[in-house]
Amino acid sequence: MLEIRARISAGILTPGGRLPSVRRFAAAMGASPSTVVEAYDRLEAEGIIRGRRGSGFYVTDAGLPPRTPTRMGIAEADAARTPEIDPFWVSKQSLDAEPSVLKPGCGWLPDDWMPVAALRRGLRTLARADGALLTEYGGTRGPLALRRLLLARFAEEGIGASLDQVMLTGSGTQAIDLVCRLVLQPGDAVLVDDPCYFNFQALLRAHPVRVVSVPMTPWGPEPEAFERVLEAETPRLYITNSALQNPTGATLSPQTAHRLLILAQTHGLTIVEDDIFADFEPAPSPRLAILDGLSRVIRIGSFSKTLSSAVRCGYIAARPEWIEALADLQIATSFGAVSPVAGELVAGILGAGGYRKHMDEVRHRLAHARIDVAGQLGRLGIVPWLMPRGGFYLWCRLPDGLDSASVAQRCRDEGVILAPGNVFSVAQSAGAFLRFNVAQMGDPRVLACLARAMG
Amino acid sequence: MLEIRARISAGILTPGGRLPSVRRFAAAMGASPSTVVEAYDRLEAEGIIRGRRGSGFYVTDAGLPPRTPTRMGIAEADAARTPEIDPFWVSKQSLDAEPSVLKPGCGWLPDDWMPVAALRRGLRTLARADGALLTEYGGTRGPLALRRLLLARFAEEGIGASLDQVMLTGSGTQAIDLVCRLVLQPGDAVLVDDPCYFNFQALLRAHPVRVVSVPMTPWGPEPEAFERVLEAETPRLYITNSALQNPTGATLSPQTAHRLLILAQTHGLTIVEDDIFADFEPAPSPRLAILDGLSRVIRIGSFSKTLSSAVRCGYIAARPEWIEALADLQIATSFGAVSPVAGELVAGILGAGGYRKHMDEVRHRLAHARIDVAGQLGRLGIVPWLMPRGGFYLWCRLPDGLDSASVAQRCRDEGVILAPGNVFSVAQSAGAFLRFNVAQMGDPRVLACLARAMG
Repeated sequence: MLEIRARISAGILTPGGRLPSVRRFAAAMGASPSTVVEAYDRLEAEGIIRGRRGSGFYVTDAGLPPRTPTRMGIAEADAARTPEIDPFWVSKQSLDAEPSVLKPGCGWLPDDWMPVAALRRGLRTLARADGALLTEYGGTRGPLALRRLLLARFAEEGIGASLDQVMLTGSGTQAIDLVCRLVLQPGDAVLVDDPCYFNFQALLRAHPVRVVSVPMTPWGPEPEAFERVLEAETPRLYITNSALQNPTGATLSPQTAHRLLILAQTHGLTIVEDDIFADFEPAPSPRLAILDGLSRVIRIGSFSKTLSSAVRCGYIAARPEWIEALADLQIATSFGAVSPVAGELVAGILGAGGYRKHMDEVRHRLAHARIDVAGQLGRLGIVPWLMPRGGFYLWCRLPDGLDSASVAQRCRDEGVILAPGNVFSVAQSAGAFLRFNVAQMGDPRVLACLARAMG
Repeated sequence: MLEIRARISAGILTPGGRLPSVRRFAAAMGASPSTVVEAYDRLEAEGIIRGRRGSGFYVTDAGLPPRTPTRMGIAEADAARTPEIDPFWVSKQSLDAEPSVLKPGCGWLPDDWMPVAALRRGLRTLARADGALLTEYGGTRGPLALRRLLLARFAEEGIGASLDQVMLTGSGTQAIDLVCRLVLQPGDAVLVDDPCYFNFQALLRAHPVRVVSVPMTPWGPEPEAFERVLEAETPRLYITNSALQNPTGATLSPQTAHRLLILAQTHGLTIVEDDIFADFEPAPSPRLAILDGLSRVIRIGSFSKTLSSAVRCGYIAARPEWIEALADLQIATSFGAVSPVAGELVAGILGAGGYRKHMDEVRHRLAHARIDVAGQLGRLGIVPWLMPRGGFYLWCRLPDGLDSASVAQRCRDEGVILAPGNVFSVAQSAGAFLRFNVAQMGDPRVLACLARAMG
């Protein structure tokens, strides 16, 4: 054990370095294997080394001079290793789940709800594409065909934007991250809804900013509270979903939209409107980006919920000079825009004509699923906060002061991943809530497990 | 004109907002169109509005309270709009070039050097893949098949890493950016080679850090200078290519590698070794990541130069606790790792067996091209700094004190994009150099244009 300590302090064994196997070390030291096992156990108890199943023991950072990362760093990663419920909890549990795990808390549709046949056709078409498309980086704003399709959709909504106002990105999240990197300065405040999509919080942790929040109503953020927080905190950015807000499914009212824009104007606030659920709406609802004409509102979107999450592609629409600066930033930080192959695949499917019919079917199926699941949850005393006009989420209150984090931990132990309310809440005001994905609730084991966990 | 100014200061016309057309505004004001044209011209001269061809006039930021971005911002974007030669120059000129433009300065192979047939086969195979693979986000570290292939290659090189030490990313650049976001704090110094890949500089501008540099020799960075800069600046990170360094083609010697690692250990330096040109080497040369065993060296790689730049996929190999923190950061900032579709495509091609033969052919072809192009350049008095062991770059000195930036500007006006030396140089010490991509010099117009620009 002294030998190990000496090697570490001499820098021969550095953090992350693997220790010799018990057998080898025992042989080298002329000690018995059980002595070595005991020594390793004690070093592990002290935190100097750590065992990993099937892979031996490794030196930790414990012997190093402390270095506290101000952004996301080792300390937080260590915290996340114990499955504590934080804004990363749902994503990590869902993304890395084994196929047998049920995921009513996740944020995507099962593959049999997705346009898999269109994706297969699109890949076969790509296989015959020009060699340059298949091998070269492509332009700094992404494939022209997809940018043109987006502009045509914007024009239908009444936004007259030009090609230099649209840039494709690796994902909707990456688009928001680029905007944050462009406009935020250390110490700036950023405003989000309470509750809001948990990854907005995770994302903002990677920036040196303060996060403030405003309570949601079924018609958008509460306008009086919105004004108060603008006066008190002068946030630089407001990040929101206007249509089918995640997690509540709330829809911005025309009056609230108009009022928010006037307040934004008065207080010099820039708005990031993440429009990822647009195509799940039965009919268009108010959008800040449309009323404002992409002046102080930046529109973000992605095809992850409607076409494929495996083909990474998002976009930003904004003022041309912002797009120019964002394109530079995207070159610097990921050497270019979206994968041209991904962009062409998405453009091909959106342009082929079957997409609207596919989304009609998905909306129809989801409308039934929302009603069915609300009924099933109701029998457990779990009640939706509102019945959304579309989408796959139901934001629901648990009965009798039950704590959703405890329920989620119990379900997780049985292989069911839920989305507990406080991962969505900056103010930690949503401990009684769970977000359900109605498309992921077909398996009766979900409700059975939930009933047990509540019992 | 007063009316326009009033509208801007009242906030009715906000930055980015489009002005009424000349005809509409004239009609509304009861003025003649020529009066409005004159007013718009004067406002444009003052910088209050800006015209865009075919799209009218827009309000600029000029009337706003000044907001100086500390990171990359509007100010820099404006500077970049005039094609000033900076670290973005080569990438923007090359990425957004029309097909007719010749690109001897760009950083990729022409598509007829790339494994297009294998990509087509890979896409057809993907078209038959499991629906979940084609539609779901995938795990936080990226597809297992590709991570296993990488580990098998590492094992051949003598690195015994485990699966929790490898994470896939959207690109090699994105991998480096994630590392920078994880470990760098405001004011940290970061060390690069002089010259180095221009996008390292562009990337570091997006971080609140100081960039310092060390002169390159044909065997790696100059060790005495390396030690001096470590003592004087205590950089937190050193970012480098060990094999076939970009732009020089230099190869790290075993002695320099060993010495750098000892210095890094003494001074608490973490090293990012970008190994993107590994497969272009005729035989393996020393690697910091191998000597060090992924303890304080982070290995970065990508498939953009060898398989496809259009299928975005890079990787990071590092200590498991760093990978864990980087995976969190990748969820936060782009919601997940590489596109699973991209990752599977790459794994399929690397695993299929034809890849090694393809790279044998590319290396053979490049060896001839290097000699041919060096001969052609020699006849213009342009001499390689060294003859690289592999790869597609020649780093060359111009004769007679010619300035490479001027030569590059003149060639650009004729539709030939060069890579002038100082875009690679933090110390701006490479004004007499150009980097040539020998695979992009097949068209005789390149040398003809170069000769004219030098004459």
